[in-house]
Amino acid sequence: MEALVQVKEQIKIFVQECNDERSLELLDLLATGKMLRSKLILKIAGETPEALRLCAVVEMIHAASLLHDDVIDEADTRRGKPSINALFDNKTAIMFGDILYSKAFTELSQMDRKIAYNVANAVTLLSIGEMHDVALTDTFNSDYKKYLDMIYKKTASLIEASAASAAILAGRDEEKYALYGKNLGLAFQMIDDILDITQDSATLGKPAMLDFVEGKVTIPYLLLHQRLGDKQKLENLYKKELTQEESDWIKHQMEVTDALADSISQAQALGNEAINVLHDENNPELIMIMKAMIEREF
Amino acid sequence: MEALVQVKEQIKIFVQECNDERSLELLDLLATGKMLRSKLILKIAGETPEALRLCAVVEMIHAASLLHDDVIDEADTRRGKPSINALFDNKTAIMFGDILYSKAFTELSQMDRKIAYNVANAVTLLSIGEMHDVALTDTFNSDYKKYLDMIYKKTASLIEASAASAAILAGRDEEKYALYGKNLGLAFQMIDDILDITQDSATLGKPAMLDFVEGKVTIPYLLLHQRLGDKQKLENLYKKELTQEESDWIKHQMEVTDALADSISQAQALGNEAINVLHDENNPELIMIMKAMIEREF
Repeated sequence: MEALVQVKEQIKIFVQECNDERSLELLDLLATGKMLRSKLILKIAGETPEALRLCAVVEMIHAASLLHDDVIDEADTRRGKPSINALFDNKTAIMFGDILYSKAFTELSQMDRKIAYNVANAVTLLSIGEMHDVALTDTFNSDYKKYLDMIYKKTASLIEASAASAAILAGRDEEKYALYGKNLGLAFQMIDDILDITQDSATLGKPAMLDFVEGKVTIPYLLLHQRLGDKQKLENLYKKELTQEESDWIKHQMEVTDALADSISQAQALGNEAINVLHDENNPELIMIMKAMIEREF
Repeated sequence: MEALVQVKEQIKIFVQECNDERSLELLDLLATGKMLRSKLILKIAGETPEALRLCAVVEMIHAASLLHDDVIDEADTRRGKPSINALFDNKTAIMFGDILYSKAFTELSQMDRKIAYNVANAVTLLSIGEMHDVALTDTFNSDYKKYLDMIYKKTASLIEASAASAAILAGRDEEKYALYGKNLGLAFQMIDDILDITQDSATLGKPAMLDFVEGKVTIPYLLLHQRLGDKQKLENLYKKELTQEESDWIKHQMEVTDALADSISQAQALGNEAINVLHDENNPELIMIMKAMIEREF
């Protein structure tokens, strides 16, 4: 998509405006993702100069949050490339994240007030979500509401704000698109959490079932925990390196109790709710994005 | 000053709006500084609700930058209290910094557009200044312009933006107050750098002449380096633990070459320029703040 190249060009222009050689070098080293948020903005608002600037701002914020996440999670790789903290050090990743955040906010301050509020508020939620994500790995969390609130803040809030802001740019119904973005984000995270269990390590590019080892009690584990008569066995495996037998037992129990199938259903229900809300909006591409996400193989 | 208590109350309200218990606990653990930026804003704009909100935003940004600085510098203390990274860990300091930054930007997005731009742009400069500060400790920097640019970005830019924004709130001459704030910040940093040499460790609360050991070539060292016939001896002492004899030699050379006296003169010249610019503004308190800073004992 030609427009995504223009978004990358706009990001580069914004970073060039910072007059800092090092930041430009670091920008070149960032692995580009799927640019989901930009795709969403462009499909809602069209490929206008304003929309391209909003895309650049949101992608810079997203990149900044990942730079800090990788320091917090001590991650060596990001999208198959070495992370900035691994290539250099933590401080470089922290400082470059702060530069991207603040330059994005500077540009945001010159946009529509409601858009600036939406996006800045989403970053607050995202930062609090990151705090909760870390806190929830302290002990086994069996509270589904806490999980849902955390993934809303950490993953869905910026996607929600992107969609809502794009709707404002296009003069469309902000609330409908906000709900679409929110549900897309929630479904995306749930499916990511499900794939951690159902896919093998070769496909994932990391060890399978790593979430639970790292202390993350995601939706399939939450549903399983609710449904197990003897919860102790599952709790005992929490944050442990799992043997083949143990991971097989978890997967088997997730099938027997329908924990896995019901997790998939919940993600799909969120997707379908969003599809219904956009029914009269005549935006078949957004429907396709959501369908591609929820109607995949698990 | 009663109004500074109100600023702290406003910060607490903003953090409460984040609905995150942990953030409120962490806020309580932050050591309060002199609140120089707030004092400046209140003396320029008066103690209005708008000014108090701007103060809270600027103090939150300043606190966030210190939280990240302490991680970057691996600092154990801040204003005589244990730093957040020392009390807990780096990730807590990074995440709480991100929460304070983003909540401040969210509030800023609802203020006057020019104020929002001024402050957000200052944070970009501040973040780049931090990057340069770290980079300048790699090798002996003998370029005075690089030092001046770095302290402008890292220390003066947010003070400049605070003063300019307060002037906008009060309908006063933005440029005059921007210059005052910029020069106050530059003089403040230069004097801090001079005191590192002239004061003993008991007064400083840390080892004297630590800057040079840590790789910071500040203004007195820069002037000394320019004036020494044999520069090699000074360069050889860079980033070394200094013996008493070595630090005595540096101080003696700084006196013989007038490097120290001229550093003080440069800080004073910046202060006097600001005092002159505000001559017709009828704000004796701002003149007093600057005089108190530059007319002290060194």
